[in-house]
Amino acid sequence: MLQSGRPVMEFGARRAHSVDAAVYGARAAIIGGCVGTSCTLTSKEFNVSASGTMAHSFIQSFDSEYEAFKAYAETYPNDCTLLIDTYDALGSGIENAIKVFNEVLVPNGYRPKAVRIDSGDLSYLSKKLRTILDNAGFEDCKICGTNALDEHVITSILEEGAQIDLFGVGENLITAKSNPVFGGVYKLVAIEKDNKIIPKIKISNNTIKITNPGFKKVYRFYDKSTNKALADVIALHDETIPEDNYTIFDSVSPWKKKTLKNYIVRPLQELIFDNGNLVYECPNLNEIAKNAKYELDTLWAEIKRIKNPHKYYVDLSQKLWDLKNELLEQ
Amino acid sequence: MLQSGRPVMEFGARRAHSVDAAVYGARAAIIGGCVGTSCTLTSKEFNVSASGTMAHSFIQSFDSEYEAFKAYAETYPNDCTLLIDTYDALGSGIENAIKVFNEVLVPNGYRPKAVRIDSGDLSYLSKKLRTILDNAGFEDCKICGTNALDEHVITSILEEGAQIDLFGVGENLITAKSNPVFGGVYKLVAIEKDNKIIPKIKISNNTIKITNPGFKKVYRFYDKSTNKALADVIALHDETIPEDNYTIFDSVSPWKKKTLKNYIVRPLQELIFDNGNLVYECPNLNEIAKNAKYELDTLWAEIKRIKNPHKYYVDLSQKLWDLKNELLEQ
Repeated sequence: MLQSGRPVMEFGARRAHSVDAAVYGARAAIIGGCVGTSCTLTSKEFNVSASGTMAHSFIQSFDSEYEAFKAYAETYPNDCTLLIDTYDALGSGIENAIKVFNEVLVPNGYRPKAVRIDSGDLSYLSKKLRTILDNAGFEDCKICGTNALDEHVITSILEEGAQIDLFGVGENLITAKSNPVFGGVYKLVAIEKDNKIIPKIKISNNTIKITNPGFKKVYRFYDKSTNKALADVIALHDETIPEDNYTIFDSVSPWKKKTLKNYIVRPLQELIFDNGNLVYECPNLNEIAKNAKYELDTLWAEIKRIKNPHKYYVDLSQKLWDLKNELLEQ
Repeated sequence: MLQSGRPVMEFGARRAHSVDAAVYGARAAIIGGCVGTSCTLTSKEFNVSASGTMAHSFIQSFDSEYEAFKAYAETYPNDCTLLIDTYDALGSGIENAIKVFNEVLVPNGYRPKAVRIDSGDLSYLSKKLRTILDNAGFEDCKICGTNALDEHVITSILEEGAQIDLFGVGENLITAKSNPVFGGVYKLVAIEKDNKIIPKIKISNNTIKITNPGFKKVYRFYDKSTNKALADVIALHDETIPEDNYTIFDSVSPWKKKTLKNYIVRPLQELIFDNGNLVYECPNLNEIAKNAKYELDTLWAEIKRIKNPHKYYVDLSQKLWDLKNELLEQ
């Protein structure tokens, strides 16, 4: 996950709705592109980078901010990020940080990693801090911003020219705040009886809640020259998809048609269990994240836009559409 | 949890953010007043009532809705709630339900529990269903409503006169959709050194994020004649609270004062561990739920109002306020 090229770290464990939600939420964040997580259990179990700085309580537990910074720098000279807003980021915070950089790191051949700010106006503070750090000879010291961030806040402060090099995102990532209720639920679509597959449908007054019946397969069409995804088509499991041209249509407004050409078509499902046997080799987390990135890159930017994105087509095959209507008529 | 006197069941397990979130979310729902949960693991582990009806997939797995209802009624004649909206609630659904009530339950001396609707306009459908059930001699058959409900939808459809006797609430309860990010986090407020307690503070540009320093106790003041809660006061751990009159003040606007009289004051904290030993007897879930109800009853209705509730006072003692300001000055 890069916001305008800046790396994002997952910092949400303490706000997750359970231990599992923290561990698997952080795993999902890594798949989504985060460069690291503060959840040490996820780091350990899935072999991904643990990142994070000290807590405010670490600073407070010392007699002074300076002593806290000094102790931290002496312990982690190679990986020194200091949280500078416990008392006053632009005052004592940055002053003590620079003092410790100069006293503990530089004489021993180390450079600081970053300073972190977790309150106040991140845009304003980061610009001031950038100047102070540059003037003190720490142009290479990064600025890390955290505090109730999400994609909208990050986009907005970067537009203002905030001098933040990396972000830590917590509560809004780990709780899926923007969409806490995932709408997908299990519905029965077919039953097997006497070796025959009998499609089933669930009808609803809300058209969107009417299920697509039958045993199905999903195909994705990629444009051959750009490798961008054109559309997904849900078809019956025994349909064959032609390799040269294919006409898709909107299942709500079927007169809206489009003929795809010059494509590569690929089934999206993989066989995981066959007759109760695991026949699939599970990739590790790094491979999954790599694959997620590859697939994301096949989507046009218009579809990934944060505000009012263009809708990606997921259509039904003619045969599936016919079956659905046949069952609805019954 | 009674919405205008109607019982609410927790139905959210499938939407929870992990198994633990489902199990402990359902437990929390019971504490909050739900009369039962569809989470069988919570039911088993905490000895609370399991409730729920069949899934749509149960109905669909039969050759017909009638056969599904019949099989269910024969299996649970004593506890028969039928989900009637798989195909058409006001058509086949209620017709098949009444048919099965008359064929399977009534001849064997049983009465139906309820019919459940999970889609469409619950207000409109429930009124129609009430009439149909009454005309068929099933005035005692309840109507259960589910489908993306929350306190606002329930209040609104009851205002319209919906004939729903009990509600199942899922996704919006188990995910805390209205407030997915709980704002409470651990902050260091004091350290113990050489047998002395040294208060600590965390300063922030956001005034609300400045911590209250020191080792503290929380007291609740109840009005003696009504047993309603008047205010909470956070004090230092070694303060004594007078029993006859006490002046509270707003910690943001300290000139706003109020003198409490004729009260009972009670510390809200209990000693759980003493020198590493568990000294508290943990109540069971029913006792916790009973206690939660008792405490809720001590709050004025104005404070529990869903829209624009009156703010409950949580103030600082004079000594704590003085300590905070002293540390801020430093």
